[in-house]
Amino acid sequence: MYVKGVGMTKFGFENRPTWDMAYEASLEALNGSAINDIDAVVVSTVDTLVSDERQRHYPSLVSSLFKRKIPMIQIPAVCGGGGAAFWTANKLGYDNVLVLGVDKIAVNTPPIITNEIMNATDKVWEQNEGMIFPCSVALIAQQHMLRYGTTTDDLDLVAFKNHENAFLNEKTPFYRKKITLEQIKKSPVVASPFRLYDCTLNVNGAAACVLTKDKTDVEVAGSGLNVDYMGPFEREDMTKLIACEMAAKEAYKKAGIGAEDIDVMEVHDAFTILELISYEDLGFCKKGEGAKLIRDGTTKIDGKLPVNPSGGLKARGHPISATGMAQIYEIVRQLRGECGDRQVSRHKYGLAQNIGGPGGSVIVNIFKKVGG
Amino acid sequence: MYVKGVGMTKFGFENRPTWDMAYEASLEALNGSAINDIDAVVVSTVDTLVSDERQRHYPSLVSSLFKRKIPMIQIPAVCGGGGAAFWTANKLGYDNVLVLGVDKIAVNTPPIITNEIMNATDKVWEQNEGMIFPCSVALIAQQHMLRYGTTTDDLDLVAFKNHENAFLNEKTPFYRKKITLEQIKKSPVVASPFRLYDCTLNVNGAAACVLTKDKTDVEVAGSGLNVDYMGPFEREDMTKLIACEMAAKEAYKKAGIGAEDIDVMEVHDAFTILELISYEDLGFCKKGEGAKLIRDGTTKIDGKLPVNPSGGLKARGHPISATGMAQIYEIVRQLRGECGDRQVSRHKYGLAQNIGGPGGSVIVNIFKKVGG
Repeated sequence: MYVKGVGMTKFGFENRPTWDMAYEASLEALNGSAINDIDAVVVSTVDTLVSDERQRHYPSLVSSLFKRKIPMIQIPAVCGGGGAAFWTANKLGYDNVLVLGVDKIAVNTPPIITNEIMNATDKVWEQNEGMIFPCSVALIAQQHMLRYGTTTDDLDLVAFKNHENAFLNEKTPFYRKKITLEQIKKSPVVASPFRLYDCTLNVNGAAACVLTKDKTDVEVAGSGLNVDYMGPFEREDMTKLIACEMAAKEAYKKAGIGAEDIDVMEVHDAFTILELISYEDLGFCKKGEGAKLIRDGTTKIDGKLPVNPSGGLKARGHPISATGMAQIYEIVRQLRGECGDRQVSRHKYGLAQNIGGPGGSVIVNIFKKVGG
Repeated sequence: MYVKGVGMTKFGFENRPTWDMAYEASLEALNGSAINDIDAVVVSTVDTLVSDERQRHYPSLVSSLFKRKIPMIQIPAVCGGGGAAFWTANKLGYDNVLVLGVDKIAVNTPPIITNEIMNATDKVWEQNEGMIFPCSVALIAQQHMLRYGTTTDDLDLVAFKNHENAFLNEKTPFYRKKITLEQIKKSPVVASPFRLYDCTLNVNGAAACVLTKDKTDVEVAGSGLNVDYMGPFEREDMTKLIACEMAAKEAYKKAGIGAEDIDVMEVHDAFTILELISYEDLGFCKKGEGAKLIRDGTTKIDGKLPVNPSGGLKARGHPISATGMAQIYEIVRQLRGECGDRQVSRHKYGLAQNIGGPGGSVIVNIFKKVGG
């Protein structure tokens, strides 16, 4: 399959109905193709009960929105929903599919959001112990630091790099807003070792694309999805996301390439440690050596392997199911050379990696610029 | 694709965790194949917030449950979730897929359940007006009665037939419990014209099957899914479910047959009128003439076209996402001649029709007995 148009709203705190954001992102993605050319829709949203929308039947809502009666399904996978929807759409066999991720989470007070996000973790062993989501991932970070010598300075560098990138991205809440390394280092502790700037920002937003069998300039070279047990505590090795390794293996195999061929990528840095672990599990360095790539500047926008040129979840913000599609939006535009100030120099192969829960679902999609 | 094993828990009010029910139904379906032979899982559940499970990442929970790391996705479609999961699994291209529907709704007080089910309808035009789900479908019934002369006596006959069938089904809450026509006629009004016995019963349960590329004795002959606008009030004709007509057309086309070839079917009689409308929209009679088939006994278990031999949603109960898979469980067992006292006599082609919302998603799956 190939990617035709892509679309994305600004990510932020604006209180718009999800259908309004879904409409905007979809229309931008449909630019060049008409809604009448679409054969099916795959939408990802975490039923929008966290807001006041009370809407559990999103495919039918999309039908009302576009006044279209075609096959439509919904694929939620908590924070990995966008990627999972794309992976599924790529397999359905339709000629033209609209894939859409949308969520609205930044409308309530932090305790309500924190409570909602806890539902992505194990009820008995995590939630009942009061382990909010940042704590669950903090345990992973602690293990990684203990075993491999990763430091909070390394985590700070991830946050700093991604805020530098978001400074150049007009769709983020940090556009033209400088965040200094000192601000990052002095920010309040959320769940040790994470400070405020180690954590993503929950925002509202939507992103979409049109997947097509017509040959365009961007091909879906490979796509993999895998799941793993709910709790990091259940896993053989807490510092490794096995689902990521498996999904990547599948995607590389289908694409007929290896990690060394990737020119640019967006990874799921909901917490800074996840970016470093993703360098490892996606095959860009040995286990435990992720920090090297941030220390030596490899993953900066002008480095050898730019990672999260959009600013990532860290600094672009994370509207749950829209995130996976926003990553794809960025990668496709990077491959097309449309990213202006933050355009990376080499852009033949791009990779988008989306994570649901603390590694329970991982989706890896690889894109290839065809010709040009 | 073909169907290997099928599995189903008893439907009822037992307060078991969803994972426990999911495990039981899955193991029964896996009978004859090992979990190690499964390449992917498609699970349908409405995030189980209606109960106290607080679990938004069900694929990962299934991974923990079976200790398996393979591709798994979740497909909710409110009451049509089971059918939608099956439709999707049939398209994914894996050799062996476990399809699972599970929900737990009968654990709270009726106001909480009623409030939850309202989320399957339009927020602005229906929920805000206090239109609970039975009211939404009652409007459809009123229109059908007004336009086509369908009567409450006809609706009573649907309830009576399906309770007679459930009397023979050991998995239903009405097993060996007689419900008389008089009880039905004297039951309290819920939303006119619906009395208590016109409405399905919300229960807990799970149902599953293994879809395979290996040739078995039951083939998936055709499968169709379509969506329509959220509210009946938005539609050109409230008495017709266009999504049903479209999904059926697709399924018949793929199967290379017509309605006249179907020997037995399970339809989504969440409210009695929906069974009559389904006779029409699935092509078994002209628009408006559905009542004839219940009056003349055509759809009784010993009639020419037995409908809902399991007891249907009406009398088998309706555990939301498990319903679509329970319909498939019944049809596959009918085709295999395994249904004992309620076994239908002719069983080459069977059809299962599952509806999400008041017609917003409709899924039609057709099964064919191969050989024998």
